[in-house]
Amino acid sequence: MRLSRYFLPVLKETPSEAQIVSHRMMLRAGMIKQSAAGIYSWLPLGFKVLRKLENIVHEEQMRAGHIPMLMPTMQSADLWRESGRYDAYGEEMLRIKDRHDRDMLFTPTAEELITDIFRANVSSYKDLPLTMYQIQWKFRDEIRPRFGVMRGREFYMKDGYNFDLTKEDALHAYNRHLVSYLRTYERMGLQAIPMRADGGPIGGDYTHEFLVLAETGESEVFYDSAVTDLTFGDREIDYDSVEQCQSVLEEFTSRYARTDETHDEELFNQIPEERRRVARGIEVGQIFYFGTKYSEPLNAVVQGPDGKQTPVHMGSHGIGVSRLLGAIIEASHDENGIIWPEGVTPFHCGIVNLKQGDEAADAACEQLEAALTAVGLEPLYDDRKERAGGKFATMDLIGLPWRITVGPRGLKNGVVELTSRKTGESVEMTPEEAVKKVAEIYAPHRVGGLF
Amino acid sequence: MRLSRYFLPVLKETPSEAQIVSHRMMLRAGMIKQSAAGIYSWLPLGFKVLRKLENIVHEEQMRAGHIPMLMPTMQSADLWRESGRYDAYGEEMLRIKDRHDRDMLFTPTAEELITDIFRANVSSYKDLPLTMYQIQWKFRDEIRPRFGVMRGREFYMKDGYNFDLTKEDALHAYNRHLVSYLRTYERMGLQAIPMRADGGPIGGDYTHEFLVLAETGESEVFYDSAVTDLTFGDREIDYDSVEQCQSVLEEFTSRYARTDETHDEELFNQIPEERRRVARGIEVGQIFYFGTKYSEPLNAVVQGPDGKQTPVHMGSHGIGVSRLLGAIIEASHDENGIIWPEGVTPFHCGIVNLKQGDEAADAACEQLEAALTAVGLEPLYDDRKERAGGKFATMDLIGLPWRITVGPRGLKNGVVELTSRKTGESVEMTPEEAVKKVAEIYAPHRVGGLF
Repeated sequence: MRLSRYFLPVLKETPSEAQIVSHRMMLRAGMIKQSAAGIYSWLPLGFKVLRKLENIVHEEQMRAGHIPMLMPTMQSADLWRESGRYDAYGEEMLRIKDRHDRDMLFTPTAEELITDIFRANVSSYKDLPLTMYQIQWKFRDEIRPRFGVMRGREFYMKDGYNFDLTKEDALHAYNRHLVSYLRTYERMGLQAIPMRADGGPIGGDYTHEFLVLAETGESEVFYDSAVTDLTFGDREIDYDSVEQCQSVLEEFTSRYARTDETHDEELFNQIPEERRRVARGIEVGQIFYFGTKYSEPLNAVVQGPDGKQTPVHMGSHGIGVSRLLGAIIEASHDENGIIWPEGVTPFHCGIVNLKQGDEAADAACEQLEAALTAVGLEPLYDDRKERAGGKFATMDLIGLPWRITVGPRGLKNGVVELTSRKTGESVEMTPEEAVKKVAEIYAPHRVGGLF
Repeated sequence: MRLSRYFLPVLKETPSEAQIVSHRMMLRAGMIKQSAAGIYSWLPLGFKVLRKLENIVHEEQMRAGHIPMLMPTMQSADLWRESGRYDAYGEEMLRIKDRHDRDMLFTPTAEELITDIFRANVSSYKDLPLTMYQIQWKFRDEIRPRFGVMRGREFYMKDGYNFDLTKEDALHAYNRHLVSYLRTYERMGLQAIPMRADGGPIGGDYTHEFLVLAETGESEVFYDSAVTDLTFGDREIDYDSVEQCQSVLEEFTSRYARTDETHDEELFNQIPEERRRVARGIEVGQIFYFGTKYSEPLNAVVQGPDGKQTPVHMGSHGIGVSRLLGAIIEASHDENGIIWPEGVTPFHCGIVNLKQGDEAADAACEQLEAALTAVGLEPLYDDRKERAGGKFATMDLIGLPWRITVGPRGLKNGVVELTSRKTGESVEMTPEEAVKKVAEIYAPHRVGGLF
């Protein structure tokens, strides 16, 4: 992409309404624009990252054997009356009357609707296990939306639902979700720690929240520092293996890690003092097992192997996709701007032309752009007639992990400069070497999809 | 994908509420489920096709140089008051009050919002031309929703907006859209004829609708049969070339083709009688040039080369993505079910095992599945313990263009059967030949993206 043809309205001033760094940087980098309180438009750069995150979530959910589908944003209130949640949900539910004066609502979560789809189509245990999920816009009418996309009213969320014959099967589904979420966050360059949590309005006998440590986190968290040494890495997992999934769960949840809702001072004090940590965290996902809480009132039953009708065991599992953008920036930035992890960066590599209009420099940049594209990467070429300082500041702000700088002086020696956004280190090399190097860096970070 | 692990709730009975063939077949093939009047859940098979269509639209829009972004579903009423459309829009706009009693609405179209983004960020002609688009859920509170996804209330739509300094530039943007839409529909296996249309509530000095001919179409159309001989084919287009885009427009719009809104009997009668056609059509897209209709009231101005402030020339351009599913099925089916064009099929090839449990047949099917996957195709393997007749009926209903049938008898001779859904013709060949043949068929029909 040529910057002269893109829409990247970066701001020089820090917007006064933004209280936290991710909100400020998303506004300054031209990623989002607020259109109403807690409601944002995703400008091209923000949309691109949002789609990258969505694609990673899809890839990892499908890898786990979960089936993508999509439910509408508008629902009838009827199903929520059946489950008993319509009156219970409170003012955060956006309630709407249509032209025929029927009660509708903007989906905040979809346990009722997916259970309705299930009960209408599945009647035998032979069709289980089944896990379906969607990534769809949700609405929560927060009384005081803030922190940009971290606590917006309209937000993009992955919500998945498992249907199983027994509690045991449903707990395997729970474990599968835990494993797939660990992989998902790691691919995004995040360490998200599963912590024992509280069920809240969804309910649930078992539930873990995934938290990213950050000073601006909304939750206070208490943990054994040993949990931060755990990484999922590139181990292969057979999602059908009950034992493998269970052992990952045990590995990642046996150490003390809890939010303030479930914190237990006595247990916490059993951790060796030097490993006790109190910090703040951003919630980026939650998994639940809640048994027959919805299947019973909604009559989602199957015939079991014994011929008897039995309500299915369910769980629901969410990842806050739009909120993740904020969390990633909170976890990865410096005073000059965002530092995207390689797995989620909107463009793989910036190309800065130090002397736009110089024949050799222009030609070299165009060749680099073509060569990077040819190896399946997306470069962003700053081809504007601007001073080098302004171009560097823009690249630093929008946070592409790698930048190739091209100038007439270097080209005389046959070299360009490859710079790491994270370390600031620059190395001179030939353009061919730079392309090869960048391709190598991204080899383990390929995300499917168009963006 | 193994059918035993998928969620494909096909129905044996024809649902009584469905009046047209696409609605009946989408329900029967387990693609959608109604959740409220005119509001549908997209079950896995339907979602997969919807995403394929979305990906084709994205690919063709980006090829034309248009920039993807995303606007929210919920908007404040304020901007619509500024443009004067809030009161004018009527009851089809879903109006909502949030918890603070502020007037909101579910986006039916986004001229106001995109113009607001533009005016906040662009002030010079140097940043033009600019075309941005989104694919997002919209809502239109139809008094009597019907025909399934063809006339639903919540629908998925691509809407793009161009901003240009002059009318001339804006007409080039108009032509670019026409060209990119022709390519888009052809890749979907559709012939969509651009017809001179009426501006309606969007307004517009120039506007064309794209119509797919179908008996169940909602519009009466009048055309010179010569227009149906035109195909875009695989010609290369330079979207920056004013001349090339203009000449495509002329080629595709110089013959008489109009909806009933703009029909002119006198002009029509000048066509040689044997070429005059009166038929019905399904609208699948519309492009508009409307000049400064929104930029003036919303004050979207730029400084021109002469230093003067001038309102930008705009157009908006839409493709009904969810409605396209219905249109494709209306145009391509038989009495047994859907016949997907290769460009949009949810799975590329079905694999039917005639004798599940037979060691040789099971092994051959698994090898075929692996071999098709290895060449980048997505097979759907019916591995259920069902009679062959039931498996064939399901495959015919869901409409995969190609099917490989595997049975113990054929395998003794080293062959499987490759069957065309469209013609019903079957040819025996080795499994390796079948994979090679299917890969060749799909070579010109690759769609990017995850689904």
